[in-house]
Parts: sequence; structure tokens; C-alpha cells
Amino acid sequence: MEFDAPNYPLLSKMATNDGHGEKSSYFDGWKAYDSDPFHPTENPEGVIQMGLAENQLCLDLMQEWIKKNQRASICTEAGVSEFKAIANFQDYHGLPEFREAIAKFMGKVRGEGINFDPARIVMSGGATGAAEILAFCLADPGEAFLVPTPYYPAFDRDLRWRTGIQLFPIHCESTNHFKITQSALESAYEKAQQANIRVKGVLVTNPSNPLGTTLDKKTLRTLVSFINAKRIHLICDEIFAGTVFSEPRFVGVSKILEEDPNCDQSLIHITYSLSKVLGLPGFRVGVVYSYNDTVVRCARRMSSFGLVSSQTQYLLASMLSDDEFTTELIAESRRRLSKRHEIFTSRLAQEGIQCLESNAGLFCWMNLKMLLKESTVEGELELWRRIIDDMKLNVSPGSSFHCSEPGWFRVCFANIDDETMEVALQRFKSFMRRAKKKRWQNGLRLSFPRRFEGMTTMTPMTPMTPSLLSPHSPVVRATTPA
Amino acid sequence: MEFDAPNYPLLSKMATNDGHGEKSSYFDGWKAYDSDPFHPTENPEGVIQMGLAENQLCLDLMQEWIKKNQRASICTEAGVSEFKAIANFQDYHGLPEFREAIAKFMGKVRGEGINFDPARIVMSGGATGAAEILAFCLADPGEAFLVPTPYYPAFDRDLRWRTGIQLFPIHCESTNHFKITQSALESAYEKAQQANIRVKGVLVTNPSNPLGTTLDKKTLRTLVSFINAKRIHLICDEIFAGTVFSEPRFVGVSKILEEDPNCDQSLIHITYSLSKVLGLPGFRVGVVYSYNDTVVRCARRMSSFGLVSSQTQYLLASMLSDDEFTTELIAESRRRLSKRHEIFTSRLAQEGIQCLESNAGLFCWMNLKMLLKESTVEGELELWRRIIDDMKLNVSPGSSFHCSEPGWFRVCFANIDDETMEVALQRFKSFMRRAKKKRWQNGLRLSFPRRFEGMTTMTPMTPMTPSLLSPHSPVVRATTPA
Repeated sequence: MEFDAPNYPLLSKMATNDGHGEKSSYFDGWKAYDSDPFHPTENPEGVIQMGLAENQLCLDLMQEWIKKNQRASICTEAGVSEFKAIANFQDYHGLPEFREAIAKFMGKVRGEGINFDPARIVMSGGATGAAEILAFCLADPGEAFLVPTPYYPAFDRDLRWRTGIQLFPIHCESTNHFKITQSALESAYEKAQQANIRVKGVLVTNPSNPLGTTLDKKTLRTLVSFINAKRIHLICDEIFAGTVFSEPRFVGVSKILEEDPNCDQSLIHITYSLSKVLGLPGFRVGVVYSYNDTVVRCARRMSSFGLVSSQTQYLLASMLSDDEFTTELIAESRRRLSKRHEIFTSRLAQEGIQCLESNAGLFCWMNLKMLLKESTVEGELELWRRIIDDMKLNVSPGSSFHCSEPGWFRVCFANIDDETMEVALQRFKSFMRRAKKKRWQNGLRLSFPRRFEGMTTMTPMTPMTPSLLSPHSPVVRATTPA
Repeated sequence: MEFDAPNYPLLSKMATNDGHGEKSSYFDGWKAYDSDPFHPTENPEGVIQMGLAENQLCLDLMQEWIKKNQRASICTEAGVSEFKAIANFQDYHGLPEFREAIAKFMGKVRGEGINFDPARIVMSGGATGAAEILAFCLADPGEAFLVPTPYYPAFDRDLRWRTGIQLFPIHCESTNHFKITQSALESAYEKAQQANIRVKGVLVTNPSNPLGTTLDKKTLRTLVSFINAKRIHLICDEIFAGTVFSEPRFVGVSKILEEDPNCDQSLIHITYSLSKVLGLPGFRVGVVYSYNDTVVRCARRMSSFGLVSSQTQYLLASMLSDDEFTTELIAESRRRLSKRHEIFTSRLAQEGIQCLESNAGLFCWMNLKMLLKESTVEGELELWRRIIDDMKLNVSPGSSFHCSEPGWFRVCFANIDDETMEVALQRFKSFMRRAKKKRWQNGLRLSFPRRFEGMTTMTPMTPMTPSLLSPHSPVVRATTPA
């Protein structure tokens, strides 16, 4: 067998296929923002980025802490004596004080009285790296994880691209607020088996990205007993655990383990990160926390591909060990997120836009079904393009989250300042008013349900423009006066 | 087809096989050090780490710079106003000023007048991440890269573990100072083809780890024309480019490309890092620099798994843009490395230990063939265990570098201070003197070659202990008086 030069491709399949997942409206929206970014004075007509689940609401508190704690940095007069040792430090276990601080913070931010073991903290390059590491550890190429829809678009990149594993959807529906049910789990598992796909686990986000909801205890118990019965893994992505801003409070999988001694702990794995709760995505602090010793060992070896900069470890070790500071930070972050969420969703509601009721996250799951020309992915994407082009708001369409129902959009509210949010809300307002006016002129009425259980309040009976609504849309058919 | 729970393994093959490569004497040596680390006062009998290619010789210069440039850090009073923007920055292109500074520094440290294009700089989690990214981009599982031996042990982890690609040896010999020849290249390529292994490229380290030698222009031209003829890739790991401390000066593959317009640039890729020349392994700054546009795009997407902390990017962007400072840093680093190398190798030579003549790197390639009981891998490892156990020096055996000749060891000299080096040299001295004495008492003589071309000077005709030398060793047979 001989391989002559021109007979096989120069690059790998990975380098030439679309496994990176960037050919998605999710990322197209980012590009639309990047090519015309809003600025209050320099580009007031630009695109506002509402497709980025970032938290800029509490960075000022950290900035103040840093000013007062100059010893925490190896780059200050007060801390530079540690420069040599820290710059040179590359143990893949991480600085012991960093691991201890992270473990403590993970426990504290959940508020459940759970102690996390620093020996199980494995560093990774953000949550991106953490997810990939677990995929490499738990499944061989071709094997699959079940994932409830809608789910975070970049999971397709993070978990699948370089590992060759598959994600298989657990379809969740708005009729029960996208909850994960036993029957949905069983159905997805069976379908995968019928397709000859070996299921190695279930991956959930808790709090959910994009829903902004937390898993209740019952659902968590269902998940844990399901994966125990099937002898497969449960990966809980808890990177938004620190963003729960109202009742019900967060319950993590660790709490369920604590309460259920019969559960096989070696099947349970958590990914965590400081990017969301602290708003430090640039620092690339991801964590794999596994209850399985073999996975901890393997993940730690893999962490060599994405360790956290020791400069950053050192700073955060100090900051997160400051108990008084983290107590205040967590509380204040909750207050600010809650306030932002309240203002944002109530103002949307004034314009007739409802969101799924939520208690966490840096985003809302917004229902724009009534604006679809047709209830299809194409209809959703057409509306989305108009939101980007006319409203100049980058929100993310539900189809990019693999949502099975067209018309839902994720809209992020914590990565912008108050003034930018006000501009965004004004744009929503004028977009909706234009839509209503046109519809009114055309003598058509569109009724919204007076109150959809699980949704925030909204103005009912809003008339809509026919230009936005196709006669093929079930929404239109159901509401056009006979 | 049904997969019942207990019928297949819970974890992936990757998590349960030895692809991580840590079951190697190279890493065992690290563990020996970790379990009993030398300290001048607290543990003066502990193991000295000479298995770590790190550079601690110029960190004081950087420390001084940091004190004088407080605006360079987001954690100082002077620079904290940038904290919010930088902590929140997570574009996988990196800070523009960081890429520019790295490109400039890469050019400067080579001293060849080559301009590197910031648009081709892709961040990665250290050189570890850079190597893996290129493997993912260039080869499919099962395909191979040819690598001249001896080579860096962790390449087996970095390039193979998670990618499934293979490394196929190009055997190089001490008789021509381990140079890469056309015939060795052809021979390795043919052997791979005979084994039905598709060769996708050649991977070289320049300067070589572990040899400490630089590739000459002729060898580089041979490599470039070989890979062009075969239409395969050339990966040049140039992470030690800044460690060339004496003549001949460094010549990189970029210089060859500049001089040869017929070469297909899209086949050429460089990995780089700041860990070695600056001694900043903790900061995890790796770089993929590819002349292939598709690879740049793909590598950048993959860099999401191992971005450099924006805190670190910000600091280094400022430091490496300071022209006056980097000029002095590069020059002073060269002086200090040169001095350290000169002292270390001449003192070894006084004890009868010769090293391959070298002009770069943070290590020597030390010839201890005369101490082998038998000229086999087993003999080498037996000697190595004695070096660890008796001398309490962690050096790395050639077999862990896939060297085809037993008796070579890599010994690092830049990761320790002057006092620790002195202790290490004393240990070498007493070890060798004991060996000589024993041998003398037994009436045996062992002659060393008076001068082995390409080796540093050494004391000739050193008598050796028979306990160290097996009668089966060719070295012994050749030199025992009849």
C-alpha cells in the first residue's frame, strides 16, 4: 500500500469539516455585532450585543478589592517578590491555595452547605476545556451523551468536535416549561439505542443555559436514578450556579448525592467556571470536579492542554479566600442581577413580549412566536434576521439551541450597562409598536394568551402586523378574526 | 443492537490506557524529585531537579521591569482602571497588542531579521497545546509524523494521546552528532509506508530538545525539500529559539522560506512559547504560527480550549513591546546561559563526563556510556536509578527520549540557582570519584576516547569501577586489559 502525494488530503478532516460549529446563527449574530458594534457616542446605531452570556455587573467590586489588596498580585510593589516563584510554577495540580479557594467558593456560591474537596478540583481552559476533557474521559468516538433541548450551541463544538462523540437530544417542550421528565429521558435513550448509538451519559446545565431556570430536586433525583439504573454518567454543568437571583434557590447534584447514599458517586461529574458568576471569562478559569477518582486523575493529566495562568491562579486564590469579600460579592451580585432581570423583563412585558419565568442566569428565554410568519425554523430565522438588521440587537434564535419549537430567542441582559440596556429596550419598544401599528392598519388582531403559566406577565391582546405574520402560521390562523 | 449496562466499560479507552505517557522514566524522575525535593537548608540530602528544562536565570530582570512599569498590570493602582475591560475580554484572536508584541519578540529573539505576521499568531495553552492543535489540524487518527530521535518524551502525550495520531522515529546516531540526514528521512518514510502508515509530516525541534544543538542551514534545506517532494508538512518546534547562547547562531525555517520562493509555504508550521526563553511556564503562553491560512483559521477555533489568560496577555503585551528592555533581556539571558553552560560542562568534563557539543537549550546531552553495566536500555535504566537513588539527581535517561543508543542522559542546568548547581556538581564529582576508586582497587582500567569529535573536552583514561560495568558490556570488553 503506497500513499502518493496528491492522493490524500493535506489537512485533517477536522480542519476541513464544520465540526467547529461556527456555521450557526448563534455565532453569525456575534459576527454581526463584531462588524458594527454599538457605542453610545461613536456608533449609536450599531448592533447591541445581547448574544453574550457575560456578567459585567460586579466587576467594579473586584476592581475595588484589587486596589485594596496589592499583595494579591505578583505585579505590584507589594507582591512582586513572589513573581519568580509564580511565573515559574507549572504543576498541573495548581497552586494548593488556588484549589482550596475555588473549592470553598464553589460551596459558598451554592449556599447549600456542601463542602467540595480541593483534591478533586481539576483546572481547565474555561468551561469550554472542562466539557471537552469530560467528553474525552467518559466516551469513545461515536458514543453519545443525551442532552435536553434547548441547549447551549457551543456544546456541539466543546464536546463533539475533537472528541468524535455525539450529542443526542432529549426533547423538552414549552407545555411543561421545558422540564426534563422521566419519559423524555427514556424516549431519548431508546431512540439512541434504536439508532445503534451507545449512550454514555446525560449532560445537563443547571441553572439552564438558555432557559435561566434551575432544576428542582425532583428532576435531579429523576436524573440521578435514571443514570444509576442505566449505569451511565451524569455531567452537571453548573457554571451558572452563582447567578441564581431569586427563589427557588439553587440545588446542585452534590446535594442529591449527599442525601442519597445509594447513588453511585463515580458516575457524577460537574463542570464549573468563574467566567459567569464573577464575569471573568478572560481569565479562563474552568474546573472539572468529578466524584470518580480515575476521571480526576485522567482529567488532571489532560489539564496540561489548558492550565490556568499561575499569575491568575495567584490573584484569585487570594481574592476568593477573602471570606468577607466573597460574602458581600455574592449577595450584591444577586441583588444587581435580580434588579436587572426585573427591569428588563417587565419592560419587555410592557411591549407584549413574554419570557419564560426564570430565577437564574444572565439571560431570558424570550417568546416571539407571535411574530413568526410561519412556525418553522426558516420563519424563526427570518424574524431573527430582522431583529439583527432592523432592531440592531443580536439575540440568539432558539434553533441554534436545538429548540424543537420555533419562536424562542435567548436574550442576554447582564453584559451591558444600564444605558445600553435602555437603548435596547427602546429598540424593542419601537419595533413592537411599528409591528402593532401596521397590523392595526390592516384591520387584523392578534391575541396573546392572557397568562401563559410559567411566563412573566405581559400585555394581552396585542395587535400585530400582518407583514410579520404569515397566513401559514398557526399563531395567525388561531387569532385572526373570522 | 442493545447495550446493557454492564457490557461495556464506563470510561473511555483514553481514560483507561497509558496514552498519557506518564509511565516513563522521564516522569518517574520528576516524581522522585517531588517526593524528596532538595532544599539547601531544610532538605540538603534531597533530590535535585535536573529533569526540568526551565529557565530561572533571568526572572530577576523581569521582576525589576514590573516594579518600574506598574501600568502594565491590571492589578496595580496605576493599571486597575483596565481591570473590567481585560477581565471580560475573551476574543480567541487575543488582544491585538499581545499578538503584535509576540510577533515582534519572535522575530527579535531569532536575530535573523524575519518579520512574523501578528495575524498568524494563534494562542494555545503552552507549547503542549500548540503541538496538539497542529496534530489535530494536520492528521487524522492513525496517520503519522516522522520525528528524529532522540525527541522530547512528552511529544507522545502532546501529539498522540487525544488525537490518535502516531509518531514514527527517524533514527539519528551519535556517530554524526545525531544529525538528520536525507537517507535517515527516506529510510523512516519508507519503513512507515511498508507498515501501511500514512505519513503526514515531519516534526523537528530546533534548537533540539534534548540535544541542545541547532539545525544548520543545509539540514533545514534538506528537510524543506524532502517535505515538499513528498507533499507532507513540516512542524518546527522553535520554543528554544531564544536560548541559543553561542555560535552558530539560530537559523529558523522562516529564513529558509524567505530564501526559497519555490517552497510551498502552506506546508510549514511553527510552534512557539514563552516558557523557555523567558522562564514563564506558569503563564501558559503557547503559539501556533502557521503559513497555511486554513490551519490558522482552524487552530484559532481550537485555541478556545486553551486561551492565554487576558490578565497575562495584557502584562506581556506591555513588557514585550518595550524594545529597550527586550534587547537587554535577550542579550543578558544569552550571557547568563552561556556562562552557566560553560561552568557546568567544564566541571563535568573535569570528572570525566563528556556532553554533546551544544550551542543552545537549557540542558546538556550527557554521555555516560562508560558507566553502563551493559549497553542496553535495561543497563541504562539501572544506571539511572543509581543516579537518582545514590546521587539524588534527577536526570533523564536517553531511552525516555527514544534514543536508539543506550547511555545518554539529558541534564538540565538552568532551572536551579548557582548554589544548587554547585551541590549537584559536587555530587557528580563524588559519584565519579567513588566509581574510579572502586575500579582502581579492582585493578581494572577503563579508557575513554581521548577526544570524541563533537564532544566537549573530558579527562581521558578514567579508571572505572567493575561494579558499574558488566563483562557483557561492549565498553568493558573493549577496554579491559588482556
